[in-house]
Amino acid sequence: MAEEVKLLKTWSSPFASRVVWALKLKGVQFDPIEEDLSNKSPLLLKYNPVHKKIPVLVHNGKPISESLVILEYVDETWKQYPLLPEDPYERARARFWAKFGDDKVSPSLWSFIIKEGKEQEEAFAQALENLKILEEELKGNKFFGGERIGLADLALGWLAERGCVVEEVVGVKIVEKEKFPLLSAWMKAFLEVPIIKESLPPHEKLVTRIRDIREKFLAAAQPK
Amino acid sequence: MAEEVKLLKTWSSPFASRVVWALKLKGVQFDPIEEDLSNKSPLLLKYNPVHKKIPVLVHNGKPISESLVILEYVDETWKQYPLLPEDPYERARARFWAKFGDDKVSPSLWSFIIKEGKEQEEAFAQALENLKILEEELKGNKFFGGERIGLADLALGWLAERGCVVEEVVGVKIVEKEKFPLLSAWMKAFLEVPIIKESLPPHEKLVTRIRDIREKFLAAAQPK
Repeated sequence: MAEEVKLLKTWSSPFASRVVWALKLKGVQFDPIEEDLSNKSPLLLKYNPVHKKIPVLVHNGKPISESLVILEYVDETWKQYPLLPEDPYERARARFWAKFGDDKVSPSLWSFIIKEGKEQEEAFAQALENLKILEEELKGNKFFGGERIGLADLALGWLAERGCVVEEVVGVKIVEKEKFPLLSAWMKAFLEVPIIKESLPPHEKLVTRIRDIREKFLAAAQPK
Repeated sequence: MAEEVKLLKTWSSPFASRVVWALKLKGVQFDPIEEDLSNKSPLLLKYNPVHKKIPVLVHNGKPISESLVILEYVDETWKQYPLLPEDPYERARARFWAKFGDDKVSPSLWSFIIKEGKEQEEAFAQALENLKILEEELKGNKFFGGERIGLADLALGWLAERGCVVEEVVGVKIVEKEKFPLLSAWMKAFLEVPIIKESLPPHEKLVTRIRDIREKFLAAAQPK
């Protein structure tokens, strides 16, 4: 049976990117379906009725949502280029860092982007704390997955992808080379992986997008 | 080599309970270490320096944190009584519901417990929406794992364990049999699984604990 692989996504979603990268690393052909989240398609509402969010992977008619769940599915379904190592302890570590990125690093960086003043300073301090933890984890490793990128790298890939975008929008450098030499090297090495390099969203378009989000939040926070 | 399995936990943590249940279902002998979270042990700080939270599973000296990550580790390490099915799609579904419980159901129920007035009403409405989604998922199944409990059941087990505790503390019935017949039946069936039944925390002690938390939050929300 010919496989049918569709991916409901948006061009700017970091959650969708990780799935795109995983499928490309594995050489899985797929049909990308661009969603307009301001006018969600019947397909999206049908395939992810619980969250109504992208990404959704539809494999031979069966939908899978939640990007980290999708990554595990992709890894279990297409065995080439394993995203997770074989050893259960190393697998647990990869999952731990993927979750840490989503639960801690991402929220602190978002707060840094969409807040001002004291709240932004606090978010900045928190973000630095989280980045220090990642820096520590990279000791002795090129990637979170070791010598090549794996599940944790894909899950944290948004940081490499948009670190400099955030700096451009907010005007503050976050991942400074002097403070975070290993993380800086990781970001560079990650972005140089050919599959990643060819799948990055257009830089200027992403800057505009993040700037729009920032301005929307700042305007909403103004006293009426 | 004799295996050494330790579990850093507290008696009342629903995140620790799921690991206890998993180890017991698999017949893995372990050494439970009760933590006092108001005075965290050097062991906890050493083994989970990032989050400083329980549960932490320490297997032959190697620590694993984050309860859902631990469940995957337990399932991959001890093969007896698989918590996840073999089929990648069914595995993805189990992970999806486990995550839904943590991301949606649990926060809505907590808000219901620790808020008052309009905020509590909103949390109640949200909790009911989430429970409806779970009710729907149980159609045709006794457990989220099918005919026997699996990873999603363990992850959602707190709902069975403390549904009636919440009702006792707040004074409002949440999982009504008429509204949620399948979920009510699931709660009952889950609590009747011998391994679960024998591992439940003392009911009165748990009621007191949840009541204390509720009162602390309500007091903190009072205008000074």
